[in-house]
Amino acid sequence: MSLLLVCGLRKGSSRALQMFSSAASSCLIPTVPGVRPLHWISAAGGRRTGGKQQRLRGKASLWAAAGAALLAAGLSHLHWAEAAKSVALPEETKELALRCQGFMAPPVSPLDELEQELSRGSMRSRMELLILDTQARVCRALVAADGGATFTVDRWERSEGGGGISCVLQDGNIFEKAGVNISVVHGHLSEQAIKQMNSRGKSLEVKDGKLPFCAMGVSSVIHPKNPHIPTIHFNYRYFEIEEADGSKKWWFGGGTDLTPTYLNENDAVHFHKTLKEACDKHDPRLYPKFKKWCDDYFFIQHRGERRGVGGIFFDDLDSPSKEEVFQFVQSCTQAIVPCYLPIVEKHRNDPFTSEEKLWQQLRRGRYVEFNLVYDRGTKFGLATPGSRIESILMSLPLTARWEYMHTPSRNSKEAEILEVLRHPKDWVH
Amino acid sequence: MSLLLVCGLRKGSSRALQMFSSAASSCLIPTVPGVRPLHWISAAGGRRTGGKQQRLRGKASLWAAAGAALLAAGLSHLHWAEAAKSVALPEETKELALRCQGFMAPPVSPLDELEQELSRGSMRSRMELLILDTQARVCRALVAADGGATFTVDRWERSEGGGGISCVLQDGNIFEKAGVNISVVHGHLSEQAIKQMNSRGKSLEVKDGKLPFCAMGVSSVIHPKNPHIPTIHFNYRYFEIEEADGSKKWWFGGGTDLTPTYLNENDAVHFHKTLKEACDKHDPRLYPKFKKWCDDYFFIQHRGERRGVGGIFFDDLDSPSKEEVFQFVQSCTQAIVPCYLPIVEKHRNDPFTSEEKLWQQLRRGRYVEFNLVYDRGTKFGLATPGSRIESILMSLPLTARWEYMHTPSRNSKEAEILEVLRHPKDWVH
Repeated sequence: MSLLLVCGLRKGSSRALQMFSSAASSCLIPTVPGVRPLHWISAAGGRRTGGKQQRLRGKASLWAAAGAALLAAGLSHLHWAEAAKSVALPEETKELALRCQGFMAPPVSPLDELEQELSRGSMRSRMELLILDTQARVCRALVAADGGATFTVDRWERSEGGGGISCVLQDGNIFEKAGVNISVVHGHLSEQAIKQMNSRGKSLEVKDGKLPFCAMGVSSVIHPKNPHIPTIHFNYRYFEIEEADGSKKWWFGGGTDLTPTYLNENDAVHFHKTLKEACDKHDPRLYPKFKKWCDDYFFIQHRGERRGVGGIFFDDLDSPSKEEVFQFVQSCTQAIVPCYLPIVEKHRNDPFTSEEKLWQQLRRGRYVEFNLVYDRGTKFGLATPGSRIESILMSLPLTARWEYMHTPSRNSKEAEILEVLRHPKDWVH
Repeated sequence: MSLLLVCGLRKGSSRALQMFSSAASSCLIPTVPGVRPLHWISAAGGRRTGGKQQRLRGKASLWAAAGAALLAAGLSHLHWAEAAKSVALPEETKELALRCQGFMAPPVSPLDELEQELSRGSMRSRMELLILDTQARVCRALVAADGGATFTVDRWERSEGGGGISCVLQDGNIFEKAGVNISVVHGHLSEQAIKQMNSRGKSLEVKDGKLPFCAMGVSSVIHPKNPHIPTIHFNYRYFEIEEADGSKKWWFGGGTDLTPTYLNENDAVHFHKTLKEACDKHDPRLYPKFKKWCDDYFFIQHRGERRGVGGIFFDDLDSPSKEEVFQFVQSCTQAIVPCYLPIVEKHRNDPFTSEEKLWQQLRRGRYVEFNLVYDRGTKFGLATPGSRIESILMSLPLTARWEYMHTPSRNSKEAEILEVLRHPKDWVH
């Protein structure tokens, strides 16, 4: 099945236009095994389908219906929300459509299903909106800072259930490669995944070898060109599992961490302080615990180095209550732009030498080593049939370098950052 | 303990001089955890130790004794063999020293021990000489082809037992990065290693959780600059294990494979034909079996692509007899230079565009993915405490690139090689 979706654009919003315009060109992306890209229609041309026919397709077709009506009326570059107003949709769904207007693409879940779930206060739907909102906020902030870059938006379906939206920017003014992905997937966990989870201390009870699950998250890696602007990574996710007796287990995981090429103490302090403030609003014990967890997790064992100057990291968080953890995760996602963008602005015009660029490339090599050898998410993704490889490996830098026995000289700026990577510091007291 | 070794050089052999001269500079390499670099003395300066004192150190000191005598006599740039002649060494050991004269550095095992073992026909010592000889032959061929490059020679000790010689060339005229390593290690296998071996179908019997082993091999990856010259990788190894009842298990493993950026059918045919000839001398069933094994092993699962156009690969080879397998492995090592160097010579002056260089960089990214995610040797090495990380990761290219959703256009040269990587061909009928 090739699902037809329409992406209209608000008139006069040239930045949004830039972002969305590249979505149309992504119609031609190749099919990754197990993953089907959705077809987007730009107003300039594309496949048309009658509104009625679309509507008959059921839950997933409301956006398509709105778009089809739009095309039929010969309108172009109108925002989804306006499209939603112009066709016969239930009032609540229209309201949700208006709320969704800032997203990079329509939600993964069908709009009416999402609306129904929201009215019941379901965490799945609240988290889906939170990750969509986070994706859009971060992408907008990056586009605004870069000044010249646009995001390619790929909306994809997973044949086993669910899908995602991958937003990738390459070769901007400031950013070399930035990816901000969301995914909402469901189905049954593989035996390997169950084993991995049980090895983490869970005791999941399986019925007939099957374990229904739902997982969703937003994840991002942003690699700037200038070696004085650090790389940032963040990931926030929610997991639900239905056990053999019908009861549900749930947990959140996530984190935000910084990988500078050179140490700038003020940047590290600003970054950690912003994250600490987000944590402290909920519980003063969170930041110290998750700061240490981050240092421990992003450890390149064979090098004896951390990947960067850390941040926060947590997993399997299922207390004190679903509501409280969600509120905490929401605070974390809201801290992403303020913890990072001021650092980008501060260093955007810093001059740099070819030696500094070379050191950045060597550090990018270590980034690749961590992601391919240790990162649980990457390893899990690569080993899972039907995964969207391009979205998983979007975290890799555009370029990286490996030199045999490269060793910075004593007291150099390169040795300074290595020292911190080998012996993590407390940045906030 | 810092073991003192001397590397003299044959007068007038300027190429050998180039190769060896860089060895002295490697005195300053940092200490990798668990690995101690040996100190080399260049004739131009360095630490002196009395010959007698050296000789008292026992087995490992014969080379040092020869060198010390040399220095004491005020001689410089003499070849080891000449040094060996000039001091009081047993006749057999002098003969072995003469045989070793072409190696990149003195053998890992002490010379007198090696000599004793050789006289008993021990496979360990025969294989050590074979890998040392292979290393030297390949390095010499590469230096001769490159015309401007030198090898950095690092001789290192493993604190748990054994050591190795890493020869690395960076930024030559033709070769971007080439590493040819040998290692001879012994000690006790970790539980993880035993598990891994048993999962491969072995049934190793362990006494008190310990399993004495000895492993040695030569391994190499050669990445040229020109995208029309392919990357080559080879690895030949010998393993011995002593089981709980005192009986010994042994096996050989190895292979040689080619990774072109662009497909050149003639090159692929020449490469496979040379390997086939080496195999056919021993058994006509070997090449087809090991060619398929190679295609299966170098598979980047998450991409659905092989790493290159293959070659041969085998493991756990322990029949028909130790002697016959050794003879076969010897033939394979002798085929390395003739299967590869003619391809280097053929394309050394091929012009190339920036687009071709970019495609090479993207393919190097896949090389990194294979090595870090799938390669058994790399994974095993990274997970083994005391491994020499720089020697293991020497296989990574100098630079690599990852672009989101890069897809070659239909009927392009880039699509042509991808087709072969997705559907391996028979190159020799």
